[in-house]
Amino acid sequence: MKKHNFSAGPSILPQEVLKQAANAILNFNNLNLSLIEISHRSTDFVAVMDKARALVLELLELENKGYSVLFLQGGASLEFLMTPYNLMKQNGKAAYFDTGAWSGKALKEAKLLGDVNVVASSKDKNYNYIPKVYDIPSDVDYVHCTSNNTIYGTQFKSFPKTDALLVCDMSSDIFSRKLDFSQFDLIYAGAQKNMGPAGTTLVIVKDDILGKTGRQIPAMLDYQVHISKDSMFNTPPVFPIYVSMLTLQWLKDMGGIEAIEKKNIAKAKLLYNEIDNNPLFEGAAAKEDRSNMNVTFLLTNESKKERFDKMWKEAGISGINGHRSVGGYRASIYNAMPIESIQILVDIMHKL
Amino acid sequence: MKKHNFSAGPSILPQEVLKQAANAILNFNNLNLSLIEISHRSTDFVAVMDKARALVLELLELENKGYSVLFLQGGASLEFLMTPYNLMKQNGKAAYFDTGAWSGKALKEAKLLGDVNVVASSKDKNYNYIPKVYDIPSDVDYVHCTSNNTIYGTQFKSFPKTDALLVCDMSSDIFSRKLDFSQFDLIYAGAQKNMGPAGTTLVIVKDDILGKTGRQIPAMLDYQVHISKDSMFNTPPVFPIYVSMLTLQWLKDMGGIEAIEKKNIAKAKLLYNEIDNNPLFEGAAAKEDRSNMNVTFLLTNESKKERFDKMWKEAGISGINGHRSVGGYRASIYNAMPIESIQILVDIMHKL
Repeated sequence: MKKHNFSAGPSILPQEVLKQAANAILNFNNLNLSLIEISHRSTDFVAVMDKARALVLELLELENKGYSVLFLQGGASLEFLMTPYNLMKQNGKAAYFDTGAWSGKALKEAKLLGDVNVVASSKDKNYNYIPKVYDIPSDVDYVHCTSNNTIYGTQFKSFPKTDALLVCDMSSDIFSRKLDFSQFDLIYAGAQKNMGPAGTTLVIVKDDILGKTGRQIPAMLDYQVHISKDSMFNTPPVFPIYVSMLTLQWLKDMGGIEAIEKKNIAKAKLLYNEIDNNPLFEGAAAKEDRSNMNVTFLLTNESKKERFDKMWKEAGISGINGHRSVGGYRASIYNAMPIESIQILVDIMHKL
Repeated sequence: MKKHNFSAGPSILPQEVLKQAANAILNFNNLNLSLIEISHRSTDFVAVMDKARALVLELLELENKGYSVLFLQGGASLEFLMTPYNLMKQNGKAAYFDTGAWSGKALKEAKLLGDVNVVASSKDKNYNYIPKVYDIPSDVDYVHCTSNNTIYGTQFKSFPKTDALLVCDMSSDIFSRKLDFSQFDLIYAGAQKNMGPAGTTLVIVKDDILGKTGRQIPAMLDYQVHISKDSMFNTPPVFPIYVSMLTLQWLKDMGGIEAIEKKNIAKAKLLYNEIDNNPLFEGAAAKEDRSNMNVTFLLTNESKKERFDKMWKEAGISGINGHRSVGGYRASIYNAMPIESIQILVDIMHKL
């Protein structure tokens, strides 16, 4: 039976990407060798890395604007540490938005290296909204925010204006919507939502912000080291990067971010409309901050739970149980999710 | 044409593993979902992680001896930093063997956190041997060595006896030979030689050595954090871990390390015999320290180079150019390399 995969991450990827990836495991570029058994310094893999990096800049409209692209390891979790290592001055200070569990982990690591100023938090309401009133101190080295909060289903619709460097963890909504990406100085994102499989982290960093902290940075945590080696300071995660490249090419071929944003808006609208119009359901996040990637919702009548769970399981839907800290349901509707799958979920909600 | 893949890493993997990996990309465990689009917390993937960790302990005969197994990210390069973070006391000291480029990178990172005592180095002869005379100071927190030096083709045949903790980077020869693995307190290895694709790092660590440095360790660099989360503190590199599990199962099925060691000895012998008996070739490493994984050799008559290169290329051999810092040739003959491929290389050398 066809599955409708609403997993929060690792998550759905385009079917044609999966087919190409499987073929490359058996015979890559007709080399009669597997993608995963050739040297990362071979012409064939260097071309993959170069193409992936170029596609990122092209899709985000950041070409020739002084940004470097890296495909690293360790997920956003390691970026939580690399960010302060690379940007926080000795005895420095940074401003953090606390909009969920991942923001909290990010600021915890930054505290190891300097002062952290939490400029705003939505913890008071279990992170179900994005704070809009805040003051950013003028003396911070950078401002950090999490654009989309996977667990709670909230999303920044606009970003802080600041003279300090602006850093954004875009793990769960990168490549999903048009933004002026040049407002950010550092963007990072684990691949496993909108870009590829788990195992690589995309980093987009403005070159001229680096090398200014006076810190001794361990090699693997130093963006300048990785940039100087074209993202191959050490053996890169070949397969996750290859699949990311294929997914970025898929996105470009369908018209890029402008085209996918239209689809994403239509998909989110379809589901939120049902949530708002069906008395059996309610949204978990504040309406104006709702994420177009992760739709969190609750049953208003728990007695319907058994029937609802049975219905979606029978329809081949998977991955929509809510995170334990919110409860209810979470439908992750990333770029590769077809609207037809959402329609199936909506039909079930309607029939409940 | 069938290829004979002598790449130093990423490198050859068993054909049946590649087939299973390709199938899992399309449909994993008959879930009608790809391995790379399901949650890492799903029952199906947790079973993969658990099995991979159990197979490591079983194959190395380390069950019930107080070791934990982790599959992390960042390669040996990140372990170069994690080792001192986890084991070097505040104002501490560590002893390092300098037996090649990777040892050098390891000790460079350790210097960021404390005193490094280089107890022995083979740099004087371009790392073509393993130092055997050395004194390890009694007050070091740990001793670090690199069991196999991929670039130079040397290999520790026995390991330092010390009362300090013994740490070993086994990236390029783990699972290739019988050793008393319980002599080590911490073993780490990038997967991309003998275990799987690039993108995961195996760490085997004795639990009771941790938590004793008095350091504040960033979460992602803290072995205790990863152990407490069963190697899923953050999203693990799903695909590289799955392929590693398949390769470990392949190794177990063929009789484990004892069986593969016999094959590896026979394979190395075949190639070294040709090098020693053919006046056109000479080995690059000291005989008693020769690696059974990476066989480095040189032409004694450079005028034969063009003909030799043409011959092996025509035979479908790839990946045997030597590293630029040694020159000549390097045949990497990891576990998955069949002796038939080595015979083809030997035949060409013989006919030259």
